[in-house]
Amino acid sequence: MKRARIQDIADAVGVSAAAASFALNGKPGVSEAVRRKVLDAAETMGWQPNVAARSLAGARAGAIGLVIARTTDSFGTENFFLRLIAGIEQSIASRSLSLVLQLVDSVEAEIATYRRWYSEHRVDGVLLVDLRVDDPRPAVLTELSLPAVVIGGPESFGLPHVTISDDAAMRIIVAHLVAQGHTHIAYVSGLSELSHTQSRIDAFEQASAAAGIIADPAYSTDYSAADGSRATIELLIREPRATAVIFDNEVLAIAGLSELADAGLAVPEQMAVVAWEDSPIWLALRPHLTALRRDPTVLGNDGATALLAAIDGEPVQTVAEPVPTLIIRESTGG
Amino acid sequence: MKRARIQDIADAVGVSAAAASFALNGKPGVSEAVRRKVLDAAETMGWQPNVAARSLAGARAGAIGLVIARTTDSFGTENFFLRLIAGIEQSIASRSLSLVLQLVDSVEAEIATYRRWYSEHRVDGVLLVDLRVDDPRPAVLTELSLPAVVIGGPESFGLPHVTISDDAAMRIIVAHLVAQGHTHIAYVSGLSELSHTQSRIDAFEQASAAAGIIADPAYSTDYSAADGSRATIELLIREPRATAVIFDNEVLAIAGLSELADAGLAVPEQMAVVAWEDSPIWLALRPHLTALRRDPTVLGNDGATALLAAIDGEPVQTVAEPVPTLIIRESTGG
Repeated sequence: MKRARIQDIADAVGVSAAAASFALNGKPGVSEAVRRKVLDAAETMGWQPNVAARSLAGARAGAIGLVIARTTDSFGTENFFLRLIAGIEQSIASRSLSLVLQLVDSVEAEIATYRRWYSEHRVDGVLLVDLRVDDPRPAVLTELSLPAVVIGGPESFGLPHVTISDDAAMRIIVAHLVAQGHTHIAYVSGLSELSHTQSRIDAFEQASAAAGIIADPAYSTDYSAADGSRATIELLIREPRATAVIFDNEVLAIAGLSELADAGLAVPEQMAVVAWEDSPIWLALRPHLTALRRDPTVLGNDGATALLAAIDGEPVQTVAEPVPTLIIRESTGG
Repeated sequence: MKRARIQDIADAVGVSAAAASFALNGKPGVSEAVRRKVLDAAETMGWQPNVAARSLAGARAGAIGLVIARTTDSFGTENFFLRLIAGIEQSIASRSLSLVLQLVDSVEAEIATYRRWYSEHRVDGVLLVDLRVDDPRPAVLTELSLPAVVIGGPESFGLPHVTISDDAAMRIIVAHLVAQGHTHIAYVSGLSELSHTQSRIDAFEQASAAAGIIADPAYSTDYSAADGSRATIELLIREPRATAVIFDNEVLAIAGLSELADAGLAVPEQMAVVAWEDSPIWLALRPHLTALRRDPTVLGNDGATALLAAIDGEPVQTVAEPVPTLIIRESTGG
């Protein structure tokens, strides 16, 4: 099978290529009868505008981009991304748009990817994740005039964003632990240079101080199981020892639970556990795990929808997602 | 910042746009001195060939495609895909290529996506997953002359493929259960219309028959937790009851373990459990779970590398991945 070209359609209908082109592009210069015949032939022959020709003509690339600056291992074990991508796909599917996905190893490589995509006309806009405390990316995207929407994080450096209230969520967790009688708690966090991590750490410290309980300084990790184990061991040898711990994602919680089991500590009697991210896994564990429930699929869907509006030149409001719900289960005595 | 155009480079060097174009495209008609100056200016100014212009000129789209025909939920909980994508990204990153990812709800929509991508020159080739027993996709890709590599599955309908020996892996599991003294086993499988599922079911039945033990007819599921629970309940009420069960992925195993716990059955004393796919989660569970270890990252990397060779017109050999290893742990008495 060959791709149908405008010439093929013109030949089939018996008009000039110029007339066929006018008809296909909705331009004046052909009769309605010819336009109808050309459009019918185009449909029958499966003709579609070439993305390259469209793009050269200043039209859309028909794709949005997502760059993730994580190691293969960090990306490959982070369910959040899988569900985020699923949500993005939900939003773009009905519009026959494509998602271009790139995994890179640094913020510098991410910026180089944006510049390359821009000069290649590869995408019409991008979704930004993992915002950093001092993030160089928004300025680059603004300089390139490449439409962009930030997903997550407390701030977005002037770009439209879809936010989750990380601090409100953390306050809910701390309040629950305080209500359960804990007076000394710990937090095994993600990468401290990410702004949403910083937001959670600040809320963790402030809410603990406000409640008059002890909070260990946050144990930062790179989200890996190895780091989760190391952080858990650190908090276990600290004296006095915390009686409750919050883990920042699924991988960290699983690694931490293994360490607690190896140390012979009973959950929740000797150590209460909360996971930041609900998962079907928590119901398969004994005890069932208390976890924060939010839906990354919704986040991806809302982010992509906002980006499509931005690409269309529409004003984009910041979307605030509902505060995540804490699902209280046995691991905190619930 | 504006995109550097060939005219800008020509202006900077002080030659005609035609001369600059010849120099950039490696065509004769300019002196080596001019060519050098033009290439230097192009690099300084960050010039890159426009993907649209390149594509119109018959050059590459600079991207490969992956379409996954699964529901949002099935995709969003299947870690296999996350690790597969991570491996694909590893392979293409060094070559500045992009991955175009599309999630669709049916094989028909998947085929429509291939036709659209082909007519849009969106990708240079595609990776095919979830091969079916009677799969219409390879014929379409062959008709379109769109380079393609099949990932997984016992057959590939004439396309090059990266294979995993699902039957050998199943024989290893059955042999282990027989060695542990089981005489009646069960298998909670994935979608029965997928050819790799069929291959596993065949091996499950044949290996059980050869060992002279009873095998329940395979319990097919759509990989969802709900289906995993339903299948587990079915196998528990069957009389006589199996004493060991193999779950086809992480989600099914987790759902099944919850049902076993709810039914008050001790693992492995009353029911031995094997998961098809290793996971850090299995070490957080008590007892630790016996699981089949393979690396979807390697599969993605090898698949993408084979596809890039196919796009370059090189002969592509079928790549046979090593047979997965069974990691024996407490859930089968190991």
